This record gives sequence, C-alpha cells and structure tokens, in this order.
Amino acid sequence: MKNKSLKIIPIGGLGEVGRNMMVYEYDDDIIIVDCGLMFPNNDMLGVDYIIPDFQYLRNNRQKIRGLIFTHGHEDHIGAVNYFLEEFNNVPVYATPLTMGLIKVKLGKASLTQNVALHTIQAGSQVKVGKFKIDFFHVCHSIPDSVGLGIETPEGLIVQSGDYKFDHTPVDNWPTDYAKLVEFSKRGVLALIADSTNSTRPGWTPSEQVVSEALDKVFPQAKGRIIVASFASLVSRMQQVVNAAKKFNRKITFVGTSMVENAKIAQKLGFLFIDEGQQISIEEALTLPDEQVAIMCTGSQGEPTSILGRLSRGTQRQFDIKSGDTVVLSSKTIPGNEEAVFSTINDLFRRGANVIYEQIAPVHVSGHGSQEDIKLLLHLTKPKYFIPAYGELRQLKQSAILAMQTGIPERHIAVVEDGQVITVKNNKLRLGDQEPISMVFVDGSGVGDIGPDEMRDREMLSKDGVILVHVILNKKDGALITDPEIISRGFTSSREADELFPQARKTILDTIKRSPSNMEKEITKILSGFIYRETQRRPTILVTISKI
Amino acid sequence: MKNKSLKIIPIGGLGEVGRNMMVYEYDDDIIIVDCGLMFPNNDMLGVDYIIPDFQYLRNNRQKIRGLIFTHGHEDHIGAVNYFLEEFNNVPVYATPLTMGLIKVKLGKASLTQNVALHTIQAGSQVKVGKFKIDFFHVCHSIPDSVGLGIETPEGLIVQSGDYKFDHTPVDNWPTDYAKLVEFSKRGVLALIADSTNSTRPGWTPSEQVVSEALDKVFPQAKGRIIVASFASLVSRMQQVVNAAKKFNRKITFVGTSMVENAKIAQKLGFLFIDEGQQISIEEALTLPDEQVAIMCTGSQGEPTSILGRLSRGTQRQFDIKSGDTVVLSSKTIPGNEEAVFSTINDLFRRGANVIYEQIAPVHVSGHGSQEDIKLLLHLTKPKYFIPAYGELRQLKQSAILAMQTGIPERHIAVVEDGQVITVKNNKLRLGDQEPISMVFVDGSGVGDIGPDEMRDREMLSKDGVILVHVILNKKDGALITDPEIISRGFTSSREADELFPQARKTILDTIKRSPSNMEKEITKILSGFIYRETQRRPTILVTISKI
Repeated sequence: MKNKSLKIIPIGGLGEVGRNMMVYEYDDDIIIVDCGLMFPNNDMLGVDYIIPDFQYLRNNRQKIRGLIFTHGHEDHIGAVNYFLEEFNNVPVYATPLTMGLIKVKLGKASLTQNVALHTIQAGSQVKVGKFKIDFFHVCHSIPDSVGLGIETPEGLIVQSGDYKFDHTPVDNWPTDYAKLVEFSKRGVLALIADSTNSTRPGWTPSEQVVSEALDKVFPQAKGRIIVASFASLVSRMQQVVNAAKKFNRKITFVGTSMVENAKIAQKLGFLFIDEGQQISIEEALTLPDEQVAIMCTGSQGEPTSILGRLSRGTQRQFDIKSGDTVVLSSKTIPGNEEAVFSTINDLFRRGANVIYEQIAPVHVSGHGSQEDIKLLLHLTKPKYFIPAYGELRQLKQSAILAMQTGIPERHIAVVEDGQVITVKNNKLRLGDQEPISMVFVDGSGVGDIGPDEMRDREMLSKDGVILVHVILNKKDGALITDPEIISRGFTSSREADELFPQARKTILDTIKRSPSNMEKEITKILSGFIYRETQRRPTILVTISKI
Repeated sequence: MKNKSLKIIPIGGLGEVGRNMMVYEYDDDIIIVDCGLMFPNNDMLGVDYIIPDFQYLRNNRQKIRGLIFTHGHEDHIGAVNYFLEEFNNVPVYATPLTMGLIKVKLGKASLTQNVALHTIQAGSQVKVGKFKIDFFHVCHSIPDSVGLGIETPEGLIVQSGDYKFDHTPVDNWPTDYAKLVEFSKRGVLALIADSTNSTRPGWTPSEQVVSEALDKVFPQAKGRIIVASFASLVSRMQQVVNAAKKFNRKITFVGTSMVENAKIAQKLGFLFIDEGQQISIEEALTLPDEQVAIMCTGSQGEPTSILGRLSRGTQRQFDIKSGDTVVLSSKTIPGNEEAVFSTINDLFRRGANVIYEQIAPVHVSGHGSQEDIKLLLHLTKPKYFIPAYGELRQLKQSAILAMQTGIPERHIAVVEDGQVITVKNNKLRLGDQEPISMVFVDGSGVGDIGPDEMRDREMLSKDGVILVHVILNKKDGALITDPEIISRGFTSSREADELFPQARKTILDTIKRSPSNMEKEITKILSGFIYRETQRRPTILVTISKI
C-alpha cells in the first residue's frame, strides 16, 4: 500500500496564510476550508480584488469532497462563486447565517442550481470523505461563526477560524469552551490559529464596549445619526439597532449589500428589529432628524460607497447637513488610512460631527489579541502550533506567544502560502512548496492581469505616456508626414508645447540616420531627451507605418 | 491714513494648516514662518513632493522682510531652496542646527551665495520689519527646535512650532516654560498650536522611553543591530549612539542624508559621539557582528532607501543575514503602512529579527498629545486659539481641548489653508480666502502637473492604455493600411490577441461610416466595445493621419 500521510496546505490570496483558503488532503480525499477574497494593496493598480489560486485544486479535482466555511465575511466566503463556477459538483457546508450569505452570492452569479448546500449547526459534526469535522461556535464580529475540529486519520487538527473570547457578545452566545476542552482531552495534534492581532497586548475588548460607546453618542446627537460600517458586520447592525431603540430613533439601512445582509440576518433570526422600528430611507427623510438613525456602508472611505458619496455631496437620496452625527464603526484596513481620514475631513467640512475609532471606542476588533491567543493554546493543548491568518510578521509574533505558553520552537511551523505541511505518525514536517500566484480580478477578467501589466500600469501612473507615430515610405524609408506626438499624464499642455517641438527634432534626426531597429532607437533617444529635460520617465510608445 | 490690521495666513502644502508655511502681514511688512515640503498621498501619482504655494508671496514680493524657521525637519525647511531661488533677497533666520541643515540644502542647490543667513540662539529676540520675534526653545524629536513669540502692532501671537513637553529629553534641554509664562504675563492675543496628536489621550511619552526600549533590545541582540529612522531625527541618532556605547558596539551611519545630517549635528555640537566609536560601514563589515550598530534610512519602507534595498537584497555594500536585529525607530506615516509592513515581512524572510513600534516602544512621537496641548494653553493663557499643524479632523479635536480649558468657542478659529485671519483692536476675525493650490514637484518640474494630469495618470493606472493609429487617404478618406492597435497595462498579450481582431473590426466599421469627427467616434465605439468585453475603461488614444 502507498505511503499515506495528511497534507495541510494554506492557499491564500494576499499572503495572509490560510485566511482565504486552507486545504486538507489525505489519500484520495481533499476538503477545503473557506474560499474568500482579499482587497488589493495600493500598489496593485486597477485590481478589484484577489481570489485564491485554484491551480492545486484543478490538479487534484477528482479528490475534492467538500468546501467548508467558518463564517460569512468576504475574506472567507467572497470567492465562493468563482470556485463553484469551476467546481460545481463540490458540496458546500456552512452554518445557517453563513449559508444564507453564500446563497446571496450564488444567486447573483445565478449558480444556485445543482449545487449541494448542506447547512450545519454549530456544535454538530459532519463526515466529509475521510474527515470528521466538528463545527464549534466562536465569537466574532458576525454571528454564527465557527472554528473546526478536523479529525483526520493522522490525528485531530483544530482550525480556529476568526475568533475572539468575548464574555458579553452581542448575541449572548459565547465561544464553545467545552468543545475546545473536549478537543484537548481527545488530544490536539495541531492548532491552526488566527494571528491577526498577535502584536496586540492584552485581551481584545468585548463588543459590549461598542454598545457603551454608542450609548454615549446617541443621547448627545441633536440631529440624525449616521453609522458607517462593513455590510457584513451583522453584530454591529444589532448594536446600532439596540441603541436606536433605546433612544427612540427609527433605523434604516442604506446600501444594497447592507440592506441584503440585514434582510437575510433577520430572516434567519440573527438580527432582531422590533415591528415598526425599521423604516425605509425615504420614510426616514420625512421624520424629524432626532428620530432617525441611518446605517450605511463606506467605513473605508470607498469613493463609490454611501458614506464616500455623502462626504462629496453626491449621494442620490440625501446630503450631510449641519447637526448630523456620523459614526465610523469599523477598523481602518491598513492602506486605507488616507481615504478614511479625507472622508472624515470632508464630512466635517459639510457640517457633520464625526466620531471615529481614534476619538471614541466605536469599534473593537473581532480578532483575539495576545492573551486570547494564549488562552486558546491552553484550552486546546496542541502538540504542534501553526500560526495562520496573518502576514509573516504577525505569524512570527504568534509563534513567540506559543513559546511563552510552553510549546517548543521545534513544534511551531511558521509557514507561508503554498507550503505543504505533512503529518504522519504523530509527526509534523514541512513538505514541498506548491507554486501559489495571486489571482487578480479586474472588471470581468480573472487572472489575465499579472506582474507585467502591474509594472506597465505603475510606469504609466508615475509619469504618464508619450506616443509617437511615424509614417515612412516603404521604398526609400523617407518620412511621408511630420511625426505625431501626443501624451497623457506627462505634463501640462503648456509645457508640452515647449518641449515637443525639440522632441520632434530629436526624432527627425534619428529617422535621418535610419538605424536598423528604428522603433527601439527612437524610443531610446526620446526617453533620454525627456529625462534630461524633465527628470521623468514616461512610457514611450512608438509606432512606425511603412506605406 | 489707511486702515491697518494684522493678517495671519496659513499656507500649507497638503492641508496641514500652516505646518509648512505661515504668513504674518502688517501694513508693508510680511514675515514668513517655515517653508517645508510634504510627501504626496498615494493618489497623487508620480508626485515626488508638494511645496507651499508662493502665489500670495509673489503678489506681495516687495513686502517680505524675512523667513523664519522653527526647526530642521523636512516639513518645515524642505522647500527653502525653491523659495530662495525665487526670493533670493529675503533674509533667513534660524537656530544653529536648523541653519546648519538649511545650509546643506542651499549648498546642494548652490544657493549659498548672496543669501543673508542670520543664526539666532533660542531664548533671544530679533526684530524683523514691524515684528519683534522671541525664539523660545521647545522639545521635539530634533534638537534646537523653537516656537515663536511674535510681537505685532496688534498684539502678541505665539506659534508653538512642533513640540512636546518632555521632562527627560535626550539633550536635557526642556521646553522654555519661563518664556511661555512670560508671554502669558505680557498677554497672548492668539496661540497657534501644533495639533498633530490632538486625538491622542494623555501625555506624549518622553524620548527616554525609546532609550529604555533600546537598552532592552541591544543586550538581547546576538548579531548586528540595524536601526532605521528618519535622516532628520537627530535626537534618535544620539539615543542609538548612547545605546551602542553602553553595550560596546561601534556605530556607523549609512545613507547620504543621514551621514550628512549626523556630520552637521556633530560639528555644531548637537550630536556627541566618542572619539573612535564612529566607524565607516566598510570598517563595520570587518568587525564581529556583536560589535556593530548600523543606523540608516528607510523606516517608511521607501524602495530606494537603505532599509528598502536591504529588505530586497539589493543594497550595494551589505546584506541582511540571519542573526541581524533590525529596529524600525520612527512612526509610520499614514498611507505608508503597507510599504512598511511588507518591508518588515521581507526582512523576516531574510532571517532578521525585526522590532517595530507595534511590538516594542522603539519610537515615541515628537508631538504633544491632548494633555500637552492643554498645558500649553494654560501656560500661555491666549485670548484666541488657532489650532494648526493638522487635518481638519485634528483641528476640530484640538478646538474641543481648548474649550475644555475654558476658551469660549467664539474665540477659537478652526481654519484651513488660505483663510486670512485678521486681527485689529484686540479682535480676531476671519477675512478673505486666498486661493491656495497644491504645487507638485515631479522630477525637475515644479507646478506643471495639476489635477488634469493626476486624473489622466489615475485613469492610466487603473486599466492601462490602448492606442489606435489610422492612416487615411487625404483625398477620398480611404483606409491606406490596416489600423494599428497596441496597448500597455490593459491585459495580457494572450487576451489581447483574442480581443484586438474584433476591436479592429469595430474600428473598420466606424471608418467605413466616415463620421465627421472620426477620432472621437472611434474612441467612443472602441471604449464601448472594450467595456462590454472586459468591464474595463482603459485610456484610448486615437491618431488619424491623412496623407
């Protein structure tokens, strides 16, 4: 018989090791945990988002037994439609709310047909291929989140999912400590744990803190209250609904995704709004300001979001007015600081009072900090520790925490996306490195944009483009008409008017010399000239027609 | 006689209200405080930096009596050479270290000739035009920093400069409390104060905290220690030098700007290094690792900086090796988070242990927090308060602090760049709004890049460029040769090979219809086709030659 072993492969999007997708393989069976998307860095120009690299799964298509989800945030479910378009025979397993949010996506992609969707309750177990999977509830900023206890032929692997230990969660449903302890009794071979906040000392505060902050903000607000957050932060929706109720304000949700998610969450019993408390935005705009609370998207300063448009006065239905209180109730994703702060400044300019994380605790993280991580380690008592869900610097810090709890360094595997981890005879080892590339989604294109196009776009973005067109006589190579030079994003037309006549001269000189590779030669001469004159390196495109 | 009054005009670069330049005008006299540069936001594509808009000064050229500097950081002195190129008859006033750093800049721009440079000691007074200016020492992250007490015919205005109240500063030179109290005795009409950290509760910690952190890092490091910071953070240099001495390491500075600044600071007696403790990098590389401390630039993850190159293994003189300890000892400027974190990850990948603000207090801010700001208000007891040096959100928060100390809201002027503040008969009022535009420096071009070019570059960066060239017969408008289509940063060549033949068809159809404005029509038709096929909007450039 062949030499069997368990393979664990983190397949990420933006290098957050296993956050967007984790693969477990034993013999002829593969299960996949999560299938999320990541938003691009500022240097990934024009990219809408990044999805996991399915190549390894394509190569092992026939082995895939199921796709399992931990919770309903975009970075864990966002790429499910891309996956099912290609692997539509793979059954999906998720808890009720997560499944509800997945269905919304599949509906949009009209993929609901012939996909096997299995709704699993937190606390129950399901068998998928050779894997027995316990779904255990964890607290996070969206209800119905779970971690997974994955019983494999080589031992029990626990994958935390996004979690924090919240003793006063919005839905009064604490993390399933009992299950974690049960795992430790059964013996945990390896713990794969969320390291998002591994650099944060102490405990992550309870969501309760946000409710208390809102209870301060609401009574002080004289006019309307507008709370911006992520469309998938369902717990935050409940907190705003509760505050609105407490201070006699009607609540209305604005923004397609937020409205949809609120509807699903209500339908499935994860968001509770009293009869008559929720109204439409149209209705809300007819009420006295002090009776209105509006919840919308745009907490990252996205220009096309509701808050983004409000900050620029381009929202279709209403405008910010003096007396409005705007609350940004979500973390600023690193890289978005500028956009968020300029949105805040614009809202102030329009007369709103803006309350944000830096001046009041209107947001807390849904991810465990250093003490949470240590508690998870002590509750599960794993033999091996695999820090996940973070950049290398965060995994390194997570490893330090594990060592502090007594796990020997040689039992900690700090790996990056594509690194195969093999488990056999109770031993964990590093295997091959599977090639993982970032799959960019840009418009309707998936994966057609790569490093080359990125480099071109970066060049273009820095100094613009100059294009030169030359028409020569096919026979004697003589110039038929004056070369055309136009540019975009290079310099003002005023400057260009001074510069281009000289540029044209250098081009004509080059043509006279009729070098062998004229396109290349003109490009070289011209870029040299432009650099001397302006210290800039625009992209230069030369086309030569011989007629 | 004409109706005289004092005018105060904040002239910023990136909207940090007065940080980069502040103008005081009375009758026929103008003095200018600071002339700094700002680094561009991520959406200012290709811009190297931004300098203050000199237009108001051009219009009042003959009135300018002097340019006064508060301290030697780039955002306060960085544009001095641009100013003096245009206004070379304006005398400059600064403290010794600040003047030393200014001279370096003027030297590079070969402007040292015929510029009147007046070195002023902190604590002394100088008369410039109708203004009597007290230079008073403040603690900041560079030595020899001052705030200004500006006695005007309309009263005493105090401008704080960048400051914090540090009771254990690196140079043992605390803020000049006595002078601040003296001002309050004379009666401060208006206080213009640094609001950088107005959203931070409590006090800004002393620089001492960083020394203590370094004293923990140094003994634990087994190999070389590499500390990255700003080239102008002279106090930080001293702290690293002290730690190196304490733990028997030689110190070497790497990076032109850092080496130059260290030399000036030493020459002027603001940086003390024992005979023989400072060595060259070449020498350092021959010593045992545990005897070496290297200080370099690159704490913002700038790709061309020393640390940036080390993180990518492209530094000319040496490479990161396992055992190195890298310390990032400076704040991450908002917007640079991604670059800094990916630099940290790359350094970890190369085997270094990286210590940064999030995991150890290896940096503290040089700007006062909420309690510092309140103390400054109580020490100076101004009638009016003008929060400065910050974005609108920070000024608003600063105003709240002032109200907490008892200044009535009607005596607080939250203004933005270009807003003229007039003072007459002990009353402060808002005057006209001077038009202020951002002056972009890109390569050797100053101000030739504006919003239009930015928009073009953004378009180009999002979806690239497609260029089409058509040659028609001058007489009958018939097509002479097949239209040429090339692109950059739009899609992979593989995709383009499929797409462009169809695109060519739509172009040919359009040419057949020979519409009046063919360029425009082809652009329209083509961009429509491209969007339908790819959901992208590349920049489309069409040139038509009629021969």
